[in-house]
Amino acid sequence: MNAVGIIGLGLIGGSMAKAAEAAGYKVYGSDASADVVESALKDGVLSGRLEDHYGDIGMLMVALYPLDVVDIILETAPKLPAGCIVVDCTGVKKMICSALSERLSVMGLRFIGGHPMAGKEVSGYENACADLFVGASMILCTDEFTDSAAVDEACGIFPKLGFSQVKITTADEHDRVIAFTSQLAHVVSSAYIKSPTLDVRYGFSAGSFKDMTRVALLNENMWADLFLANRDDILREIRQISEHLKEFDDAIEERNRDALVKLLADGRVRKERDNAAEGI
Amino acid sequence: MNAVGIIGLGLIGGSMAKAAEAAGYKVYGSDASADVVESALKDGVLSGRLEDHYGDIGMLMVALYPLDVVDIILETAPKLPAGCIVVDCTGVKKMICSALSERLSVMGLRFIGGHPMAGKEVSGYENACADLFVGASMILCTDEFTDSAAVDEACGIFPKLGFSQVKITTADEHDRVIAFTSQLAHVVSSAYIKSPTLDVRYGFSAGSFKDMTRVALLNENMWADLFLANRDDILREIRQISEHLKEFDDAIEERNRDALVKLLADGRVRKERDNAAEGI
Repeated sequence: MNAVGIIGLGLIGGSMAKAAEAAGYKVYGSDASADVVESALKDGVLSGRLEDHYGDIGMLMVALYPLDVVDIILETAPKLPAGCIVVDCTGVKKMICSALSERLSVMGLRFIGGHPMAGKEVSGYENACADLFVGASMILCTDEFTDSAAVDEACGIFPKLGFSQVKITTADEHDRVIAFTSQLAHVVSSAYIKSPTLDVRYGFSAGSFKDMTRVALLNENMWADLFLANRDDILREIRQISEHLKEFDDAIEERNRDALVKLLADGRVRKERDNAAEGI
Repeated sequence: MNAVGIIGLGLIGGSMAKAAEAAGYKVYGSDASADVVESALKDGVLSGRLEDHYGDIGMLMVALYPLDVVDIILETAPKLPAGCIVVDCTGVKKMICSALSERLSVMGLRFIGGHPMAGKEVSGYENACADLFVGASMILCTDEFTDSAAVDEACGIFPKLGFSQVKITTADEHDRVIAFTSQLAHVVSSAYIKSPTLDVRYGFSAGSFKDMTRVALLNENMWADLFLANRDDILREIRQISEHLKEFDDAIEERNRDALVKLLADGRVRKERDNAAEGI
């Protein structure tokens, strides 16, 4: 395979395009903004417009807002060559895979649900960069309609775009875990920064405050759709952390030092174990 | 002033010693561990043992566990030369300043409550480094017993140790704000990592997860004392974030997209304003 198509040239799709071009692939792209396509052609990131090259591509990547992904892929599918690999880049997977996996398989296309675990607090093609995925994990979700040869091919392609690992999982497991590792972080950051104490914090900044609030700088429309598409999983995680915060509240309220030390030690041990499992 | 004394040569006191030595001060230190003092003498960080040089120092810094600070300072005070500046490094200030400010003033010493806003997830002299405070804020808490000339001198000294700013405030304001910028971050990190989903997260790592859980790797005995010493302020912040998490829970539970977008947009705007105020 030597050519990829990309629909949506924002932060993620634009970075995929730049990484693929840098890796030696021909890249054909499209975007709702004609200006963005012009820029990408001028930058030499795109070798042409996707609408002129459907027949040339071996893989199509789609990086759009969550609620647009299914419709655009179904609309595009009849134009794609037989056997074309189709990978989306959406942060939730049950909603996408259940709508597409069987249908695209019947049409002779090879769909894999994808989620590149990388991002920035800024968006758009102008912030896209060829090294956004360096060191990141590319998650691929498979089911009974997935073509295993397509997964093998994808496992060869994504490391060339910078990813340090390709994680194969199911849409169910993806959505359950991502609710904890990514979605909850965004909810907590946004909740954290709502304290009225924010307005008097200048000069009292600490690294921990910066870390806790970094991802509060998010795109509210995209994240609202991601949360609603993963409602049960994110609600479960919000309730988990709320219960654990209540345990801290109780221990401090009751001045129960033993309970407080135990809660903190449990968190420390979990973090140590987690670091060790990651080889940190 | 050309010599400082330091009691407690752990991560913070050890880093103060290394930074002061690098800045050209003579440093005389003491520590509960004889081995640590030996190491610091051998490293050339210390010019001598504090017990042999009380009369030579112009400033004493004390970096001990919160509950030890007041007793050790009161025990040491009679040995210090008249007019000696005394600065502690404890993460809570009302408890320390109320116990020491007037008493040391009566003894002819010049006490200032201090809090260096820097740290690491590891502790001890072996992790101390001369550049720990580079770019950080040094908070000084003053009251009616504070000698203003001592504050002026301290404002000249701490930037030489790497601090980018010295923030002058009161113990009340310090404890109120620090509950939000630092203490809450440690509680939330510790609560975050308690989700059972942690055990299946490998391969799903994201930068936001790492940021949210970094400071869960804490010293539970020290932080338990800091939380209990600042009980009302940290309880208020835990309850603030819990209420805000409940707003997210409600909006997602009710599938109320408008409310959810509004909550997220409010967080984003607050983060943008906060970054702007910091010049980011």
